[in-house]
Amino acid sequence: MTTITAVTAHDVRFPTSLSMDGSDAMNKDGDYSAAYVVIHTDDPALKGYGFTFTIGRGNDLCVEAARQRGIPLIGKDVELAVADLGGTYRELQSDSQLRWLGPEKGVVHLALAAVMNAMWDLAARQAGKPLWRLLCDMTPEQLVDAADMRYLSDALSRSEAIVLLSELAPTRGERITELEASGYPCYTTSAGWLGYSDEKLRRLLSEAVADGYRHLKLKVGANLDDDIRRCSIAREVIGWDATLMIDANQVWDVPEAIDWVRALSDFKPLWIEEPTSPDDVLGHAAVRRAVAPIGVASGEHGMNRVLFKQMFQAEAIDFCQLDSARLGSVNEILSVYFMAKKFGVPVCPHAGGVGLCELVQHLSIFDYVAVSGSLEGRVTEFVDHLHEHFVDPCVVRNGAYVLPSQPGYSAEMFDSTLQEFSFPAGSYWVETSGSSQPSWV
Amino acid sequence: MTTITAVTAHDVRFPTSLSMDGSDAMNKDGDYSAAYVVIHTDDPALKGYGFTFTIGRGNDLCVEAARQRGIPLIGKDVELAVADLGGTYRELQSDSQLRWLGPEKGVVHLALAAVMNAMWDLAARQAGKPLWRLLCDMTPEQLVDAADMRYLSDALSRSEAIVLLSELAPTRGERITELEASGYPCYTTSAGWLGYSDEKLRRLLSEAVADGYRHLKLKVGANLDDDIRRCSIAREVIGWDATLMIDANQVWDVPEAIDWVRALSDFKPLWIEEPTSPDDVLGHAAVRRAVAPIGVASGEHGMNRVLFKQMFQAEAIDFCQLDSARLGSVNEILSVYFMAKKFGVPVCPHAGGVGLCELVQHLSIFDYVAVSGSLEGRVTEFVDHLHEHFVDPCVVRNGAYVLPSQPGYSAEMFDSTLQEFSFPAGSYWVETSGSSQPSWV
Repeated sequence: MTTITAVTAHDVRFPTSLSMDGSDAMNKDGDYSAAYVVIHTDDPALKGYGFTFTIGRGNDLCVEAARQRGIPLIGKDVELAVADLGGTYRELQSDSQLRWLGPEKGVVHLALAAVMNAMWDLAARQAGKPLWRLLCDMTPEQLVDAADMRYLSDALSRSEAIVLLSELAPTRGERITELEASGYPCYTTSAGWLGYSDEKLRRLLSEAVADGYRHLKLKVGANLDDDIRRCSIAREVIGWDATLMIDANQVWDVPEAIDWVRALSDFKPLWIEEPTSPDDVLGHAAVRRAVAPIGVASGEHGMNRVLFKQMFQAEAIDFCQLDSARLGSVNEILSVYFMAKKFGVPVCPHAGGVGLCELVQHLSIFDYVAVSGSLEGRVTEFVDHLHEHFVDPCVVRNGAYVLPSQPGYSAEMFDSTLQEFSFPAGSYWVETSGSSQPSWV
Repeated sequence: MTTITAVTAHDVRFPTSLSMDGSDAMNKDGDYSAAYVVIHTDDPALKGYGFTFTIGRGNDLCVEAARQRGIPLIGKDVELAVADLGGTYRELQSDSQLRWLGPEKGVVHLALAAVMNAMWDLAARQAGKPLWRLLCDMTPEQLVDAADMRYLSDALSRSEAIVLLSELAPTRGERITELEASGYPCYTTSAGWLGYSDEKLRRLLSEAVADGYRHLKLKVGANLDDDIRRCSIAREVIGWDATLMIDANQVWDVPEAIDWVRALSDFKPLWIEEPTSPDDVLGHAAVRRAVAPIGVASGEHGMNRVLFKQMFQAEAIDFCQLDSARLGSVNEILSVYFMAKKFGVPVCPHAGGVGLCELVQHLSIFDYVAVSGSLEGRVTEFVDHLHEHFVDPCVVRNGAYVLPSQPGYSAEMFDSTLQEFSFPAGSYWVETSGSSQPSWV
């Protein structure tokens, strides 16, 4: 018997604000950060690693919340806990006092994601499989048992979900073979951050095209004239056969979103991402009706499965961009994938940040193999930052994620990274005296 | 010139779980708590007090978040800050790194509420007025400037809001005179907690009727047979002329909510409160269509103004129960009141907890005087717990809140309360060794 002996949480921050990586119309100076969780067992060779992603200040809140979330795991038998990941999730989630602080949103939900991401990593490591394969080896019933289906029965019942998964179950192997040959298609945002100069934008777009990307994304929304100029540069460089997406990061009210997107329609973007508040289901639906055939994409700030249920019911989005560290880990992500399948909305997960690419590759592979069975309209984000900190970093070739082969959820960071970038005591932060950070430390 | 010198945040917890006060189908053992904020100035006679409300574990997260939220206030000129409370709010709210952790929901938003509640208290004290009067003395333009109108323009524009407030402005004085005579009507939940025995329920309901209450509320949703028995007792005691409300605290999926409420329809409740996830706008709308003429009430977990906007747009609720410590203080509450007026939905604020009654009385009075101009369908919650800890506690007579007269937002607690119930170092918690609390401390 192997027992969970401790759950530790670590504040890891990278000074990305110095290079304007990740800058957009809402978030001008993020320091990409992780509230990083390690589940320790009495087997020195077996640990679980997970995290949630933040952009700096407040990462400490998620770390402390994750520490509290992890306490019920201590002393559990690993075999029993990983054999019932749905039950493990529900036990953590049902703490009514912590629930009050959301419910199911914000810091306590991000912390649940961090801890359960580590539990899923532990489960995959214990099984000796990458997470995507662990999921692909589960039966439809096992997947639905693991999923958080609460509050969803008016949109998708348990039996409907099983039927939907059963249709694809016999042919899962074929699609694995296919992805092993071709990888899972991705697009890049690395070129398009708002803080980059026109010259840097032009150079990075050229490089991305040379690297094989056919989908490229620009940040917009701060200034319309700038957006028109940057979109013109983008089309000059990538041509009209490649796909351009634009992303406003929630800066507009609904009427403003409609006017602004229409003013950029000549550049024929595939989608406008986060045109307004991520909570505004009816607002997204209104924007979608007004800007068609330009699609609407949202989800990186989608707080929980109930929001996504409504996005589907209201026909508010053309592309579902769920976030692997904001939803309550694989348990809640599963139910969003099931609903997306039923409502016919392609899932194109949000990535970037730190470590999100490492996670979402597993989810996208699983989706194609076991849920959607389709690559049409699907492309997963890739941003080429900070992968060097991961023991099993994602690999992208010819604009596609190569299937991960090591056991786990690819979430483990190097010890040296923790030593350097732990906040505020890591060597980087001690040496710079937190100079890129304001006075709140 | 008076300057803000410090913003301190305090973890205050009361062991209400010992008496099952506050027990409902979702929250079985809450310890009512406050993340309590004090804004200090260089004038020893001028401080601001505010808080957000939680039910125990995780209150420390809100305290730390409030400490971080308060930092930008330090060094500000009090006169300038209170003269532009809209600008002060937007400065705190626009911290993009903390925003990522919501956005505008969960722990960071609760913390914003706590800090800005203290700023509004400071503003009212500096003006020498109770908060309701400070608000009633503001012009329509000043009120709209203070309100958070972002993301709302598809439902209510700035100019519409000004027109709507201007209609009632000339007659504000008449309604103040009226309320000074009669108070603002309230209802009580004190009798109906789920953990109380039938005998205690019967006794408390009888006492409430004798105290003049005409509206009484029961918790439901754990067991249908129990609910039928408890509703029968309630109608026996209060008769059929008094108004009964029921509250499920989010325990049901949408189809279950519809079946369960229909099974209780013979008891003719005025409303079913929180029938399902508080995030589920479309779900509330579906329940409302199915259980009419029983009304649907929701809002105590309504995370922000964008949720309420959609509740109004989708005709999802009959009663808006905004929460004074969950929304981003008066700034965000104002915009919800404005929208409620436009959409014709009565606002019946959530209270109870610790200190919420003290806050919402100000809001309800302001609503009647300056926004709605009507008492029809309006009744504000009152729960008779923990008022003894407040320097200026609310006073209820004949089922109505008596108008507060002291300067401020009635949020100040006694120093002795802080000494006794600060967690974990207050004398109560030291003496009990935190025995009512689990092992996470």
